[in-house]
Amino acid sequence: MESELKEMLIDLDTLKRSLPDSSLLASIDMMQSRVEHLTDLAKCAPARRSKVKDMSAEVVDSNPYSRLMALQRMGIVKNYERIREFSVAIVGIGGVGSVAAEMLTRCGIGRLLLYDYDKVELANMNRLFFRPEQVGMTKTDAAVQTLSDINPDVVLEAMYGCSCDPYSSLVKDHQMDDSYTLNITTLQGFETFTSSLKNKTFCPSKEGSGVDLVLSCVDNYEARMVVNQACNEMNQTWMESGVSEDAVSGHIQLLVPGETACFACAPPLVVASGVDERTLKREGVCAASLPTTMGVVAGLLVQNTLKYVLKFGQVSPYLGYNALKDYFPTMEMKPNPQCSNTACLDRQKEYILAKPARDAAAAKAKKDEVLVPECPVHDDNEWNISVVDDSEPITADASSSDTLPEGLVRELPTADEFQKPCDPQEMIDSVDDLDELRKQLEALNAD
Amino acid sequence: MESELKEMLIDLDTLKRSLPDSSLLASIDMMQSRVEHLTDLAKCAPARRSKVKDMSAEVVDSNPYSRLMALQRMGIVKNYERIREFSVAIVGIGGVGSVAAEMLTRCGIGRLLLYDYDKVELANMNRLFFRPEQVGMTKTDAAVQTLSDINPDVVLEAMYGCSCDPYSSLVKDHQMDDSYTLNITTLQGFETFTSSLKNKTFCPSKEGSGVDLVLSCVDNYEARMVVNQACNEMNQTWMESGVSEDAVSGHIQLLVPGETACFACAPPLVVASGVDERTLKREGVCAASLPTTMGVVAGLLVQNTLKYVLKFGQVSPYLGYNALKDYFPTMEMKPNPQCSNTACLDRQKEYILAKPARDAAAAKAKKDEVLVPECPVHDDNEWNISVVDDSEPITADASSSDTLPEGLVRELPTADEFQKPCDPQEMIDSVDDLDELRKQLEALNAD
Repeated sequence: MESELKEMLIDLDTLKRSLPDSSLLASIDMMQSRVEHLTDLAKCAPARRSKVKDMSAEVVDSNPYSRLMALQRMGIVKNYERIREFSVAIVGIGGVGSVAAEMLTRCGIGRLLLYDYDKVELANMNRLFFRPEQVGMTKTDAAVQTLSDINPDVVLEAMYGCSCDPYSSLVKDHQMDDSYTLNITTLQGFETFTSSLKNKTFCPSKEGSGVDLVLSCVDNYEARMVVNQACNEMNQTWMESGVSEDAVSGHIQLLVPGETACFACAPPLVVASGVDERTLKREGVCAASLPTTMGVVAGLLVQNTLKYVLKFGQVSPYLGYNALKDYFPTMEMKPNPQCSNTACLDRQKEYILAKPARDAAAAKAKKDEVLVPECPVHDDNEWNISVVDDSEPITADASSSDTLPEGLVRELPTADEFQKPCDPQEMIDSVDDLDELRKQLEALNAD
Repeated sequence: MESELKEMLIDLDTLKRSLPDSSLLASIDMMQSRVEHLTDLAKCAPARRSKVKDMSAEVVDSNPYSRLMALQRMGIVKNYERIREFSVAIVGIGGVGSVAAEMLTRCGIGRLLLYDYDKVELANMNRLFFRPEQVGMTKTDAAVQTLSDINPDVVLEAMYGCSCDPYSSLVKDHQMDDSYTLNITTLQGFETFTSSLKNKTFCPSKEGSGVDLVLSCVDNYEARMVVNQACNEMNQTWMESGVSEDAVSGHIQLLVPGETACFACAPPLVVASGVDERTLKREGVCAASLPTTMGVVAGLLVQNTLKYVLKFGQVSPYLGYNALKDYFPTMEMKPNPQCSNTACLDRQKEYILAKPARDAAAAKAKKDEVLVPECPVHDDNEWNISVVDDSEPITADASSSDTLPEGLVRELPTADEFQKPCDPQEMIDSVDDLDELRKQLEALNAD
């Protein structure tokens, strides 16, 4: 804009000198002062920070990474700069996904893939991230706009659908047409989604898919099942997140195909206090939401993402958040050998078959650790105290439903529970005679 | 800017018609197309949303409060719109305070008082909220700029010091001079701070001070002691928050003068894994920080603020966050009858003296509740199940230090522990004879 205005000034000057008489000079002078004023206004427009080649640990106010690189000196993370090698996909750029994207961007993640098919509305302003002036933009466009200003070092890929080449429409800096939004629950959307996850241009040497982790930040069951299907098929580790319709509870969950329960292995868990989702989706009725609950869930999700990719602390298999009581239930879930998802069953078989190789690798790692001992947290351990994990993981089938930790309930019954054969003795016990049973059946039919 | 450009177009048109010959028409046409292009660019500049008179529960995309008003329909909050009556003061607009301010702004809080004396630096970009283009602005100015764009309904008062009338410099929309920043740990800063808390212009009928809650989001012990002093003197309920120097733990705490421990009652608690603060403040060494930990702490802090002012759920007396293990210790602390803060002792006396009145009010409230029963969560309670809180609050003195919940440690020893008289028998038991004691003393002196 400033260069355009500068050229305007030159044009006006040329015009002034070409004028045959001086009667119009005053009007041109006025236009010149107008352009000068506009130049001043344009200078107030934000200037972007330039890209940084290497992450520096130097403690100066101008270093955007000093407080992150300090995690190395504090002994929390071994090699923070490795974060630039990682790709994370975020499905759903709403109240949780947008904040997760901002946190990862500020942490200097290598590459972010963003998926959404929705537009920014004023009704989203009760959650963090989007600003009123972005109303009407697609959420992916608005996110790319904000995130690229915050940290130009992060490679941002916003995914839209309906294109033969999914990479033809990446990182656009203009407002998108409706037809470019991506709904992963459509057949074509699903294909665009999985092919974008497989693209390894960013880090060709990476094993597996082109991303290190998929974060599901969607707001409905169907989209979660689609992410689950894609990740089971691709053997892709992912994390699920959710916030209840009454805005006062949420959860995050780690899903490793074959190793942990997949999203289809068991009915989804909710932190108690949730309201039945089906009663809320009526026309004219909207779910409640709070920037606090969504900010906490996004923070816990990205904290676990950092722990997972940078290998520090313990990644939570499941962590709930009950905002009314500040209660955080946690648990583990093993996969369901009767899971309805065939890709999950394939991953489970592979996981069992790979057990000897896994055990050998673990034994070798342990041996190497003994040979090259790491610096222990405590220099001496006179009493040989060691931490033992005595928590029992839960197998993700219906029989284990009564072993859920306090404060957690299942959102839906399992298919198994519907199909469970009735115990004839129990039936006899509960119904006094056949006449009574007949009466009950008649009453049911009359409803 | 757009109006200026429109007038430019008119000027150019007038000039065109005044020209004696057509030789200069082409150059004016070119200028006109330039101005048209500039107009397009200027249209991309942000437009602010207009103020809203009443909070509407209407479910339309253009309603910024629909998802918050839904909390009423869900039975979470009785009267959400009351949030517009409340004033919250946030001391310290850093990694936690700025996010807390944004959350409260998006929730539509009535009035926010913001205090900070620092400027935005690129080194702050690893936490949420501030943007690179705000580098060099005071944090309060930058916060007011961002927050007033997000929600113009919130009354924002950014506090700077060094002014006789603390209200002469409120809500400035230009960049501030250095001399206008507020450091509450100075004598004049403290006076400005307390007088701003006492101002009741926003809600003259309010009992007590002019604010409903003070949130401490500062990063050092001295500033926390200043907030503690001001709140003890004013009998002002406040919440404390903090994040460890290694970025992987944090806490929030509710402080009700006379009723709970004040900040001087006991050495501050930290979630284990914290690093000794004194070793970190050396020159050229900076503390680590993460947007995740700070976002979680801000979310928990504002969630408890909402629960406190809107009277729903349970406000946590103390809640810790250990990010490495996703562990959240909680506890209660009674005031220390030997607290070194005299204002705290005054509040403790008042609290004890007011016990009969408090008991009578509680009995009356219980009686009223029986007369007008509220809708229970469960319609029937066949087995008369009720929730009993069996947690024992801890008295905030040194003797209770071994009753801290798992994962919590005290940051410093109490003064009492330093002054504890030695048990002579213990001394004799531990030292075999006087010669041995002399040798030990000599060894100590030789160091």
